[in-house]
Amino acid sequence: MAQQAARQADLKVLNGVNVDQLFSTIDVIKNNPEVARFKFRASNEWVNGTHNRGKVKDFYGALKEDDSRPEVSYDMDEPPVLLGHDNGSNPVEYLLTALSGCLTTSLVAHASAKGIELKSVRSRYEGDVDLRGFLGLSEDVPVGFQEIRVYFDIEADISPEQKQELIQMAQKYSPVFNTISKATPVSVKLG
Amino acid sequence: MAQQAARQADLKVLNGVNVDQLFSTIDVIKNNPEVARFKFRASNEWVNGTHNRGKVKDFYGALKEDDSRPEVSYDMDEPPVLLGHDNGSNPVEYLLTALSGCLTTSLVAHASAKGIELKSVRSRYEGDVDLRGFLGLSEDVPVGFQEIRVYFDIEADISPEQKQELIQMAQKYSPVFNTISKATPVSVKLG
Repeated sequence: MAQQAARQADLKVLNGVNVDQLFSTIDVIKNNPEVARFKFRASNEWVNGTHNRGKVKDFYGALKEDDSRPEVSYDMDEPPVLLGHDNGSNPVEYLLTALSGCLTTSLVAHASAKGIELKSVRSRYEGDVDLRGFLGLSEDVPVGFQEIRVYFDIEADISPEQKQELIQMAQKYSPVFNTISKATPVSVKLG
Repeated sequence: MAQQAARQADLKVLNGVNVDQLFSTIDVIKNNPEVARFKFRASNEWVNGTHNRGKVKDFYGALKEDDSRPEVSYDMDEPPVLLGHDNGSNPVEYLLTALSGCLTTSLVAHASAKGIELKSVRSRYEGDVDLRGFLGLSEDVPVGFQEIRVYFDIEADISPEQKQELIQMAQKYSPVFNTISKATPVSVKLG
């Protein structure tokens, strides 16, 4: 993080990011790494067929439980060609949405810390799934996304090289990007 | 897939899954694997600070483009403790939601193909994130989820061993589970 640059510019809020709060958070965490440990959660209830509903509410972080947010629910379903009834986007589309939000937030936060003012940030996502994996028709085909391609369109008064640096930082520091691009342990149990 | 069992039972729809359509889809794909190739998509536009908006609409699959669904948008933001204003769940919560939908759909589809009737399927998700990764404060801490834990509660007239088999199948055949638990290539470019 280019703390010096942002501090010298005496910026409090840049791109809607409270840079002062960002740097004071960093100082707090340097003194007590426990503050940095977060637990995020979701739950799910099957509705019917390929239709199910995810819910998000509480999390743990900064040394305490937080259930102050209202519960939000997300309907997921498949299109008719995949046996569903279009009651919502499907789970792999939610994954791409998660990736889009995380890369964007990572890019905006780190650009703000560097003192770079952004005008607009747009991005597109496309990933390939071969259903033979899901259907158990081939052991050679990956069950998950074979590849995900992301394209960023950034408007800012910076050079193409600086834009390239921004998308490198977005990847380096994005939790969802790193969860997907590296193998992440997931345990699934009854209970 | 226990095709024989389901066929012998002469089931058309089980658990809301059209099992006949499922097996005819499998037959079509066996004859032409190109039918199984899908491309899923999302887009994102930064709003302000940690608030951005993902959108989902069209996809490619079964040999054609499909833009018949209405566009759905998903607001993402962070809670105040993470510099946001609670305009939506955050991206890692969307990732857990995606995982929840995919494991559930995988479980229900494969149970249906095996002729198992389900009464209810509920699941809980929790994942650990150490913000020192996102903030660039430690190279030793994973930037993404360190671990994700999933707990399934299945109501059905089957043995505990069969429930265990169901959650094994859910994992084996879930695209989102496999995208997360294995390293998936993600390319990020300007353009």
